[in-house]
Amino acid sequence: MQRPLRVLITGGTGFIGKRLARHLLDQPTLALEGEAPREIGKITLLDAFPADDLPDDPRLDVRIGEIDDSALLEELTREVDLVWHLAAVVSSAAEADFDLGMRVNLHGLLALLEVLRAQPKPARLVYASGFAVFGGPLPEVVVDDTLPTPVSSYGTQKAIGEMLVNDYSRRGFVDGRTLRLPTIAVRPGKPNKAASTFVSSIIREPLVGERAVCPVTPETPVYITSPRRVLDAMLHAMSLDGERLGQSRTIPLPGLTVTIAEMVAALESVAGPAARELIEWHADAEIQRIVASWPSRVEAPRAAELGFHADGDIESIIRAHVEDEGITLTGDQ
Amino acid sequence: MQRPLRVLITGGTGFIGKRLARHLLDQPTLALEGEAPREIGKITLLDAFPADDLPDDPRLDVRIGEIDDSALLEELTREVDLVWHLAAVVSSAAEADFDLGMRVNLHGLLALLEVLRAQPKPARLVYASGFAVFGGPLPEVVVDDTLPTPVSSYGTQKAIGEMLVNDYSRRGFVDGRTLRLPTIAVRPGKPNKAASTFVSSIIREPLVGERAVCPVTPETPVYITSPRRVLDAMLHAMSLDGERLGQSRTIPLPGLTVTIAEMVAALESVAGPAARELIEWHADAEIQRIVASWPSRVEAPRAAELGFHADGDIESIIRAHVEDEGITLTGDQ
Repeated sequence: MQRPLRVLITGGTGFIGKRLARHLLDQPTLALEGEAPREIGKITLLDAFPADDLPDDPRLDVRIGEIDDSALLEELTREVDLVWHLAAVVSSAAEADFDLGMRVNLHGLLALLEVLRAQPKPARLVYASGFAVFGGPLPEVVVDDTLPTPVSSYGTQKAIGEMLVNDYSRRGFVDGRTLRLPTIAVRPGKPNKAASTFVSSIIREPLVGERAVCPVTPETPVYITSPRRVLDAMLHAMSLDGERLGQSRTIPLPGLTVTIAEMVAALESVAGPAARELIEWHADAEIQRIVASWPSRVEAPRAAELGFHADGDIESIIRAHVEDEGITLTGDQ
Repeated sequence: MQRPLRVLITGGTGFIGKRLARHLLDQPTLALEGEAPREIGKITLLDAFPADDLPDDPRLDVRIGEIDDSALLEELTREVDLVWHLAAVVSSAAEADFDLGMRVNLHGLLALLEVLRAQPKPARLVYASGFAVFGGPLPEVVVDDTLPTPVSSYGTQKAIGEMLVNDYSRRGFVDGRTLRLPTIAVRPGKPNKAASTFVSSIIREPLVGERAVCPVTPETPVYITSPRRVLDAMLHAMSLDGERLGQSRTIPLPGLTVTIAEMVAALESVAGPAARELIEWHADAEIQRIVASWPSRVEAPRAAELGFHADGDIESIIRAHVEDEGITLTGDQ
């Protein structure tokens, strides 16, 4: 009988980290491909920010600290089995503060990889990247081997991270796998400093009777994935036997291509015309430019072969958000 | 009248660094595109190793130190105008010693970029990368936007470096340009720890009556460039106005595709059948695998548009080597 699994989630008090932690605490065991299911012994959440809505569970340990603090990382990765590396400074924030982005997105990952390398047994590592690694001129359809040409520091740092995870894995220092994530919508909580934050705002805020600003035109297509699919992908990526991934550990994920107009129509269909009226259209040329530089049409055959799935339609995504967040729609009252 | 140019060459006591320094000392001025020709005021060569064959010139300053020594770099880059960053731990060495490769190839570049970023005026930077950024499955012909899939730590570090130079340039911290170099042949001096070192050895050693080992089959194609073309490319890349390069600062260079058999035939044509007999054929599966993982058929239209040229044929390359190194051929005696 193997000992219970030890888990580290960086960026652990972010919304994906918390969902992952709750899921792992709720399940009695975790099954890694080719292994017998194992108990979860300990889950450490490392983040720069605390959270007040985490379960009170003796297996859960929340640590506030910096992701490039090697001494702290060394302590937190002692005999760790599974690491989800979600800590990141998002796109607009990394653009506004170059030093901060480099410190967290590049040097934080390097520090983590180095302490993991020093472990006696290579830990499994899931690294969160995104389609923001693109940004330069794009082919009409982005495929698995399209060249990343980032034109943001965030995208650059993520593209570099993908390569580092590949090389550390190739050398057997970690057993890494990188998920290149579509824009996540509907993201719960407050707007953040990602250039894509409006993609969630225009659904999330009207659903609770608040105004939201849309800085792009209705025709703008976006490539999205729901929080539920992200959670599935995080768990599935960790479960996969590293041998199946081969030389490239980067998995561009399947997503759903929708226009903003389609999102708004689905919002109306779920929450009525009043919700739609809460969206204010204020064009922002810079945001429009950045969003247009991201892929909207993507084919991801490799992920499909590995068993990853996209969302079916935007209306289901919105209904799932309503359910997950326990939102009471005006029409329901 | 602008003040004389200040130049830093890292890896400056390597053979390209030395040629570059000699060239700059020999020319009274250097013309950067769109600027009046300027005098060379000072050339600093930074390297971990000394050289005993450098010209005695008051403009030349040779400094022995480490490329990740930020304090030293800060001193050497004060008011620097032009930087050729050639310092590198080559492929097999970076594979044998991961820490050394990361320290020099990644952290050395990061340290250099950071001190250059702190300068009041963005310096022009030429960064030497190579086709070793490839290594995974390749299309039949590698083109400018083929996805790098390094399967060596050296290739990974170089591919990361290309992206860092892009992002630091995009932000205006440096005015960078990256040359993705073919295998250099005929490289003068001694064999080094590059997996490709034999490509030079099989010509260089027999030309002076010494034995050389060829670890790959005669049919193996290689993609090469001569030291003369590299020197031209280093100077031309520096002269180009950064605005012409646009978003991607990476310039994959044109080269010459030849098989080892063609190289050996050209050697015989230049130096007679006795030279050919000095090559010993000892197959090395690992070297064969690595060399086969590098592109041999390459199209580089972007570099051609920017005015970079490939060598015409292998025999001319060998004759140029004989001339540059002042070799007396047996047949001439």
